[in-house]
Amino acid sequence: MSSVNISVVGAGSAVFSMRLVSDICKSPGLSGSHITLMDKDEERLHTVSVLARKLASELKFPLEFSTTTNLTEAVKGADFVINTALVGGHAFLDEMRKIGEKHGYYRGIDSQEFNMVSDYYTLTNWNQLGFMLQLARMIEASSPRTWLLIAANPVFEGTTLLTRQTCARVVGFCHGHMLVDEICKTIGFDIERVDWQIAGVNHGVWLNKFRLNGHSAHNKILEGFSESDSFKPTNPFDDTFSPAAKTMLDFYGLMPVGDTARNSTWAFHYDEETKKKWYGEPWGGVDSPEGWKWYTDMLASVVKMLKELALLLEADSATSLKQVYSHAYSSLPGGLREDARKFFDPDALSGEQHIPFINAIVNDEATRLVVNTPNTGIIPQLPEDIAVEVPALVDSDGIHPEEIDPPLPDRIVKWYLLPRIMRMEWALEAFLKKDPSLIVEILLRDPRTRSYEQAVSVVKEIFTVTEE
Amino acid sequence: MSSVNISVVGAGSAVFSMRLVSDICKSPGLSGSHITLMDKDEERLHTVSVLARKLASELKFPLEFSTTTNLTEAVKGADFVINTALVGGHAFLDEMRKIGEKHGYYRGIDSQEFNMVSDYYTLTNWNQLGFMLQLARMIEASSPRTWLLIAANPVFEGTTLLTRQTCARVVGFCHGHMLVDEICKTIGFDIERVDWQIAGVNHGVWLNKFRLNGHSAHNKILEGFSESDSFKPTNPFDDTFSPAAKTMLDFYGLMPVGDTARNSTWAFHYDEETKKKWYGEPWGGVDSPEGWKWYTDMLASVVKMLKELALLLEADSATSLKQVYSHAYSSLPGGLREDARKFFDPDALSGEQHIPFINAIVNDEATRLVVNTPNTGIIPQLPEDIAVEVPALVDSDGIHPEEIDPPLPDRIVKWYLLPRIMRMEWALEAFLKKDPSLIVEILLRDPRTRSYEQAVSVVKEIFTVTEE
Repeated sequence: MSSVNISVVGAGSAVFSMRLVSDICKSPGLSGSHITLMDKDEERLHTVSVLARKLASELKFPLEFSTTTNLTEAVKGADFVINTALVGGHAFLDEMRKIGEKHGYYRGIDSQEFNMVSDYYTLTNWNQLGFMLQLARMIEASSPRTWLLIAANPVFEGTTLLTRQTCARVVGFCHGHMLVDEICKTIGFDIERVDWQIAGVNHGVWLNKFRLNGHSAHNKILEGFSESDSFKPTNPFDDTFSPAAKTMLDFYGLMPVGDTARNSTWAFHYDEETKKKWYGEPWGGVDSPEGWKWYTDMLASVVKMLKELALLLEADSATSLKQVYSHAYSSLPGGLREDARKFFDPDALSGEQHIPFINAIVNDEATRLVVNTPNTGIIPQLPEDIAVEVPALVDSDGIHPEEIDPPLPDRIVKWYLLPRIMRMEWALEAFLKKDPSLIVEILLRDPRTRSYEQAVSVVKEIFTVTEE
Repeated sequence: MSSVNISVVGAGSAVFSMRLVSDICKSPGLSGSHITLMDKDEERLHTVSVLARKLASELKFPLEFSTTTNLTEAVKGADFVINTALVGGHAFLDEMRKIGEKHGYYRGIDSQEFNMVSDYYTLTNWNQLGFMLQLARMIEASSPRTWLLIAANPVFEGTTLLTRQTCARVVGFCHGHMLVDEICKTIGFDIERVDWQIAGVNHGVWLNKFRLNGHSAHNKILEGFSESDSFKPTNPFDDTFSPAAKTMLDFYGLMPVGDTARNSTWAFHYDEETKKKWYGEPWGGVDSPEGWKWYTDMLASVVKMLKELALLLEADSATSLKQVYSHAYSSLPGGLREDARKFFDPDALSGEQHIPFINAIVNDEATRLVVNTPNTGIIPQLPEDIAVEVPALVDSDGIHPEEIDPPLPDRIVKWYLLPRIMRMEWALEAFLKKDPSLIVEILLRDPRTRSYEQAVSVVKEIFTVTEE
């Protein structure tokens, strides 16, 4: 099958879009596909359009591109819609966080028990959930065969919401499971030789299976941890072997994977000092004020750099993207340097799962991926109508989740997942009913609340602002 | 059937025991029964023995009494065992509360979201849960036909625990549902003409049905509420029409019944000032320091009074219990005066459900009671293996729960009962595993905790104390 139509909604996220394009260029079965880049921000859309076309051209892969600022146009005729849009952008997140902090909610009201990830807004960003729902309904109305791939947060709430409210084919993706590879590398394992599984809900996934040569190798993971005092993260995201992760492993009995270590109780998050203790100096993890600034500064510098790159390429069509891109990226932190290298390595995929998913479906190439998909008994201790994050084999027949074996322990179900799921239900009900009084009620159960009036006043200010 | 053997464990609770005896004396079908009064406190046991015998004698009802300090003896041959024992007594509760407050846990660590009742200890009083379990196992081993009636708190955790861990016939009782009568009286309804139901878990029950002449009369309840500012409780327990209850009614959509109004989030309980706002001046409800002192002072004065009464009766067998008891009680608050009147009114039962339950079973007199019993689908939205509090018809075949109609709304299930049930599960796991680290984890989710160390230190002190 050729000429698959893939639309990227929120394509202005240039790094993400380029990863997708790079991955397509290494998928022979997707040769001749048509990529529609859609974003409301014309300037960023232009930048990514220039870069993406150049990338495909230098990788010598036949692709067609079009750009649009119109969502209907992006959805029309698409076989796959990848949504990475963050409605309101980081500016909105910052504004909400600021109002929250003004009323005594450190890190904003969206930071919640088991959901401390700083761009995973479940309470205030109704526009984000609303946009996801609108998109799914457009797809549902347009074609029952079109897949919607959710890349934007909140993946757990979003995937659950869309699979409950629409008949669209929805699947959610996240990077968290990639940290299994980091675990392996740290303890000297080759992940290809390891039999592993993770299971849970997005940003709350646990390494239920970790076997080498048929034997459990869970104990070997302990060797990855250093003494608490000597934990020195290389960047704010480097928390896989943090004291927080170790304490969670001790209590829950399994290794938390990826963003899970960020999502604990408030015990690791009360303030900067606490965060530094659990996630290491100097940042205290990426969800601290300093850690988040590191991340958003880096994002901003990448956006700026890519815009300059695009201008350069437009001015001189003889310029090599490979050369200037790799050069520009060499000034960035390690993870991003690696990213640039991969683009031009014919054997390396970016790590994003969207294109492998599309390729598996289109070309019936059975591929193991970690997906967010309706539970329907995959994790039998959890409700059936929520999205779980589990490994699955994907082929032209769709998603075939693996049997979770061994099953998740009761400790994780009762003490982590069910409380997290409860909060998802509260957030979705508030969103669906557009009822700020439910947000007040959520805050009345929040450790940062000191009075009824405090909860009422922050909600009043936030929902007056967002209604404008 | 005559000569039923009824044992009261913890019979030193003299008022409770006398209510039971008084109720038996008004149940002709229980004539000739044998009552075993068991308590570890010989002095209190003696007091209650004197009073109970005298009461039966003055009510001219043929009963046999025996007393024992030995549990095995009390269980042996019993058809019904009523357990009202509070292991450690109020002194233990006070000590735990004091340690908690020393570490920054206002009202002690057992005061928890949806469980603020000050003698409903689920976290620290493992001896209480342990005693209940021991008793149920003794009964299980002694006779499969013996009923264990749980009157002691925590009824929810206790009934759930015992029905899960043993095969004993277990049922739990509480007074909460009696407040439906108060609701009716306040708005001028005759409860006999009202078609009502409550449902939930103990201390978390809701008036799902309230009909007069076939029509919902829920709206009439609103007439019972005065303006917040003018709410003036007559005693600390008088919270049925408190601002707290009104706010809960508004949010949850149904009237909270009985102790439910005490069991909210911390929003009503942060401190004395907050409590007074929601439960009225001057006490701020019964779970405030002042309110609880009012209650325990009253209990102490009743204990003292009853002891003096018993001495008086022993010194002069011609003295009439009816006379001196009624006289002594006239100095006590209204609720207790009413209690004394009922004892000697041949048509009035005490309101405790234990004897009506026994009578219904023994004499096949179908009786409507509110019981704590395994869910098994009665409230379909809740797990099957927890004890729910619902109305049931009781006869010689046992407990026949009513169909809960209309069903409990999602709001109550998702925002109140499931969070409460989650905490029950945590508490029972901690108890069954005897694992203080689980209590630490519970406290890490507690709004009063300000640091990991705080939770660890309070648990360390408490569990060192209780192990001694």
